[in-house]
Amino acid sequence: MRLVPILLATAIAAALPSAAIAHGATVHGNAQTRITDTSMAVAAQLRETALASRLAWDITESLTTEVGPRLAGSEADARAVEWAKAKFAELGFDRVWTEPVTFPKWIRRGERAEVLGANAQPLALTALGGSPAGTIEAEVVRFADLAALEAAPAGSLAGRIAFVDYRMERARDGSGYGPGSRVRSRGPSAAIRAGAIGFVMRSAGTDSHRNPHTGITRFDEGLEPVPSAALSVPDADQLARLLARGTVRLRLALDCGWDGEYTSQNVIGEMTGASRPDEVVLIGGHLDSWDLGTGAVDDAAGIGITMAAAVHIARLPQRPARSIRVVAFANEEQGLHGGSAYAKQHGADVARHQLVAESDFGAGRIYAFNTGAPAHAEAAEARIAEALAPLGIERSDEGGPGPDVIGISRAGATWAWLGQDGTDYFDLHHTPDDTLDKIDPEALAQNAAAYAVFAYLAADAEGDFGSTPAAPAAE
Amino acid sequence: MRLVPILLATAIAAALPSAAIAHGATVHGNAQTRITDTSMAVAAQLRETALASRLAWDITESLTTEVGPRLAGSEADARAVEWAKAKFAELGFDRVWTEPVTFPKWIRRGERAEVLGANAQPLALTALGGSPAGTIEAEVVRFADLAALEAAPAGSLAGRIAFVDYRMERARDGSGYGPGSRVRSRGPSAAIRAGAIGFVMRSAGTDSHRNPHTGITRFDEGLEPVPSAALSVPDADQLARLLARGTVRLRLALDCGWDGEYTSQNVIGEMTGASRPDEVVLIGGHLDSWDLGTGAVDDAAGIGITMAAAVHIARLPQRPARSIRVVAFANEEQGLHGGSAYAKQHGADVARHQLVAESDFGAGRIYAFNTGAPAHAEAAEARIAEALAPLGIERSDEGGPGPDVIGISRAGATWAWLGQDGTDYFDLHHTPDDTLDKIDPEALAQNAAAYAVFAYLAADAEGDFGSTPAAPAAE
Repeated sequence: MRLVPILLATAIAAALPSAAIAHGATVHGNAQTRITDTSMAVAAQLRETALASRLAWDITESLTTEVGPRLAGSEADARAVEWAKAKFAELGFDRVWTEPVTFPKWIRRGERAEVLGANAQPLALTALGGSPAGTIEAEVVRFADLAALEAAPAGSLAGRIAFVDYRMERARDGSGYGPGSRVRSRGPSAAIRAGAIGFVMRSAGTDSHRNPHTGITRFDEGLEPVPSAALSVPDADQLARLLARGTVRLRLALDCGWDGEYTSQNVIGEMTGASRPDEVVLIGGHLDSWDLGTGAVDDAAGIGITMAAAVHIARLPQRPARSIRVVAFANEEQGLHGGSAYAKQHGADVARHQLVAESDFGAGRIYAFNTGAPAHAEAAEARIAEALAPLGIERSDEGGPGPDVIGISRAGATWAWLGQDGTDYFDLHHTPDDTLDKIDPEALAQNAAAYAVFAYLAADAEGDFGSTPAAPAAE
Repeated sequence: MRLVPILLATAIAAALPSAAIAHGATVHGNAQTRITDTSMAVAAQLRETALASRLAWDITESLTTEVGPRLAGSEADARAVEWAKAKFAELGFDRVWTEPVTFPKWIRRGERAEVLGANAQPLALTALGGSPAGTIEAEVVRFADLAALEAAPAGSLAGRIAFVDYRMERARDGSGYGPGSRVRSRGPSAAIRAGAIGFVMRSAGTDSHRNPHTGITRFDEGLEPVPSAALSVPDADQLARLLARGTVRLRLALDCGWDGEYTSQNVIGEMTGASRPDEVVLIGGHLDSWDLGTGAVDDAAGIGITMAAAVHIARLPQRPARSIRVVAFANEEQGLHGGSAYAKQHGADVARHQLVAESDFGAGRIYAFNTGAPAHAEAAEARIAEALAPLGIERSDEGGPGPDVIGISRAGATWAWLGQDGTDYFDLHHTPDDTLDKIDPEALAQNAAAYAVFAYLAADAEGDFGSTPAAPAAE
């Protein structure tokens, strides 16, 4: 059991109702959960098989190549759903089904910016998801960070474009993304409150390439949305240098916006357990991506890792007790829609979820393991950690649920966390540069091996990890 | 004296009449050229001053920031010329003048490609300079390299798009660019001969980012040009993977083309020598860039390095005997137009050019020095090398004239070569990613120090380095 702050999910979860993800608070009368020596021996063999396999790579290659970019609600979203159904079937999953996920549809048609006047030149940027269309020409006002913009008096930016020049920091655990993504989620509304007619930001990213980082934004209730975009890091540098010389006027032309509703699908494949088939270890990734790249590290890798892990388990001579459920979640990027739909659909079955884990932090090697399980599962968790150790994975007291399992975790399912090295993740995240060549096949196989070992041992454990319906939030 | 093959210039010089750049063939009656101990002492001081100076950086920052991209013939070309005149004046050059350079003007308005059908997705590419406009939809045929395309029978590509998938190799001396750029220069004509209606290539680059590499191409006489473009490296990977699965149809839409003539300027600044002011050491870079990036490593760096070197020399207590001439060449990118114009204008004055050197290979540290001088300058060359050694520079028997001094070298001026480490140069070359953040200020200062030391010692030498009008090429 670990009582911990949530890691990456913090940034994303801000969009959800703020009930705490409580673990350990529930007192269980259960006996100690146990993992047998036989299971451990099988897991050791499974680990080596998975490490030597190219399957996770092949799945990731297939999705990124054949479907390519797959913006939620686009024509490619539908192709991705068909791809996932066919891939589950081809890989021999025992059950394959879909569950509808409905959400507002956002479209990007074009985007362009240029400095006007004596230093005329184009700047590379991309509209933030959720931005309205619009063409504006206005003076730019720079703010060093979000707090500076939020301190701007009402009306002080009338007729101008706010520019937040905050530089996100690199970290293995992605902790720089909290402050970085807050500029994206809160900046546009802060700009509007100060009277701005447009918003641009230094991308929430750690690279220095001409590839801007998109991502969803929201406008607070009662505000009239304005065109909002992220500059690539070199372009933010350039704009800052121009502003250091004097007034800069920018022309910003975004052609994008909301366009009705769309119904996509969570696509689910299951490998049936031997003796407790109605109980599941849930693993998965999200099927959608942003439109700029082919969504390789975000999140074809998560799909490839978890589909492959389930297949490696199913190819064992004997199935584990419980089923392995792999969920390819719909539309994570624009507000965890697939994860929320799953929680709604399966919230009543929380106790049948042995553990839930999503792989959605790229394709770097896993270095840490943790769960939100209570004390009676402590020994079992330690055994899983023991089986993961040869992969270079240490037991940790950090982590939390991946974004699409936040919902079901809040409903009471116990999360597991397999922490990936995200040092380079935000070089690529939400950019055109998120393509297959960035993935190290050996690191991907290490991920699949870790997911296979963890999911197998959890599925075959004697006893549970504490999933139980959460107490009402109001309590 | 070194008798050597030309390095980088080989790729570019293919565009020029193929007279050899002959050195050492001329027998000089001169006495041994001498560099005095006093000059060496001054050079040692100059080296330290230049190393500690930010001037080269400041100039490079100014050009890339204030002018930005400066495609030959564009509105920004004219602004770059004004920038150079003003910068020379501001830096205290004794004489500043311009010399006209006329060339055909090429314009890029837009470009777009997408895979059609079941795997529909956009591909990132950029038109090659010189490509005509056109929108085509056709099946793609892959060739592993240029030789394979050149072996395609006439008519075998009728109605199709040729794709050359050759992967350029990384090398410190840029030697991979010869074969890489030949795909660009010869591929389109080879495709047309086989009947193709379009040409795409894997970019001549060593990176793996979604930034395609542009560059000039030519169509052989008598062929009808077809739309020709370079895919970014990840997109070439993607197209190759799709082709491995079956037939691929591509829609290629290029909006670009030739549009009349334009007259730009070579901008020249000179620091007058103390006793032989009519003789010059010529250094420089090119003022134009491709339009995709801000032309930082190609070639604002060369402008910054050489302008700064001249200023460092001029700030010495005593000027060297000869003048230091800095040339900001017009339109190097589309066919060495500025260099050719300079050679035409100054060919008769070859003997007054003590040495000529262009910095046009990025902003990496200089690691090697050589000249094309004859035997009587051997000792002087050795002394220059001695003065450069503390900068980590070794005497070499490689190198050749930079692209814009090929013309004047062919006319008989002796070249000097300060060889830069180009290991990373083709990650950036001709891409949107060629921006200021890629330059290491310390490496840039090392370059300026090397140029200052070499130019000072050559300008103050007793005797010459063998520049003399070349024998007619027909001889």
